Amino acid sequence: MRVLVPFDGRTPCSRLAPVLDSEERRALATRLRDDVLDAVRAAGGRPELLATEPVDVGVSVTVDDRSLSAAVNAALTGEPTAVVMADLALATPRALSRLFTASGDVVIAPGRGGGTNALVVRHPDFRVDYHGASCRDHRRRAHEVGATLRELDSHRLATDIDEPGDLAELLLHSDGRAARWLRDAGFQLSTGDGRVAVERHP
Amino acid sequence: MRVLVPFDGRTPCSRLAPVLDSEERRALATRLRDDVLDAVRAAGGRPELLATEPVDVGVSVTVDDRSLSAAVNAALTGEPTAVVMADLALATPRALSRLFTASGDVVIAPGRGGGTNALVVRHPDFRVDYHGASCRDHRRRAHEVGATLRELDSHRLATDIDEPGDLAELLLHSDGRAARWLRDAGFQLSTGDGRVAVERHP
Repeated sequence: MRVLVPFDGRTPCSRLAPVLDSEERRALATRLRDDVLDAVRAAGGRPELLATEPVDVGVSVTVDDRSLSAAVNAALTGEPTAVVMADLALATPRALSRLFTASGDVVIAPGRGGGTNALVVRHPDFRVDYHGASCRDHRRRAHEVGATLRELDSHRLATDIDEPGDLAELLLHSDGRAARWLRDAGFQLSTGDGRVAVERHP
Repeated sequence: MRVLVPFDGRTPCSRLAPVLDSEERRALATRLRDDVLDAVRAAGGRPELLATEPVDVGVSVTVDDRSLSAAVNAALTGEPTAVVMADLALATPRALSRLFTASGDVVIAPGRGGGTNALVVRHPDFRVDYHGASCRDHRRRAHEVGATLRELDSHRLATDIDEPGDLAELLLHSDGRAARWLRDAGFQLSTGDGRVAVERHP
């Protein structure tokens, strides 16, 4: 399946600013992206990067510096297409296979906090809108255009690496490039009374 | 399948104290629990409440006021048993069916933050330890006793209603008792730049 992977090369991982400086955020973002590209290929997908600026990563790259929604909609050509965010570092080939093979004109993998971390579009009239609680909006849009909808229940696809709390998920559930980079940067799990967090020992 | 549902009737949902007073936390907790019991039954499970104090909910109740781990281990009798936390308000019959039917001597559904929100035990020597990053510890323990391990990838089972940020998940993905109670209490989604949050309008 054709798989668009949107990647913001300008200000990636901006909400990690409390724990990583801008050069570190860029370093982490490229590793997150490369982990995702690997998993897409291992799941049998054909990744295409949809980037805000030119980048050399060994896959087809379309440069489009408009908003995420405008760029994705312009790239939907009618061919069945998956859209997988570049920061889904927990995405395994197995989780992506479930996504690619799920039936439905539109398949949504909701992200934590109401986003749409991954989806499959097989209906010609469906368009994305990533603003706000997009998983809710995408449900409604699928209904409006008469598309059958399936929601995929996956913690791995629900977990984008967006906020500092997400880094614990990376250390708990991945051994990819991004997780190794994070460990090398001194991050480790910190267990207390509630959920596990991360702490840094440079 | 036999399904233990541990329920803390003394100080439930204590980490929601920033947004709910103690009477409200108790009201929400009973609705979370009843939603979980409904979903377990709809998935073909036979729920048994494992409670810190006597409670009348129409299912078999074992009262054990020791720690969660001690109480669960005492209730593991050798019969294949699932343990499903009482605050998994997004748990659907479908998600629980995936859990109950997954193969493996031990099946773990990790929670956000490294917990073990749900598991199935089919090995006589496996014991739980819910302290800290328990999903990691449970992986190791399964290996130590020679049990085959399966991890279940589910956002619905990964989402326990533990911290204020989790309330958005409840409003986004559930229409059960707990979600309705939360809406009636004035909570609604608040969309901004990042993840969706909740705000209260009493």
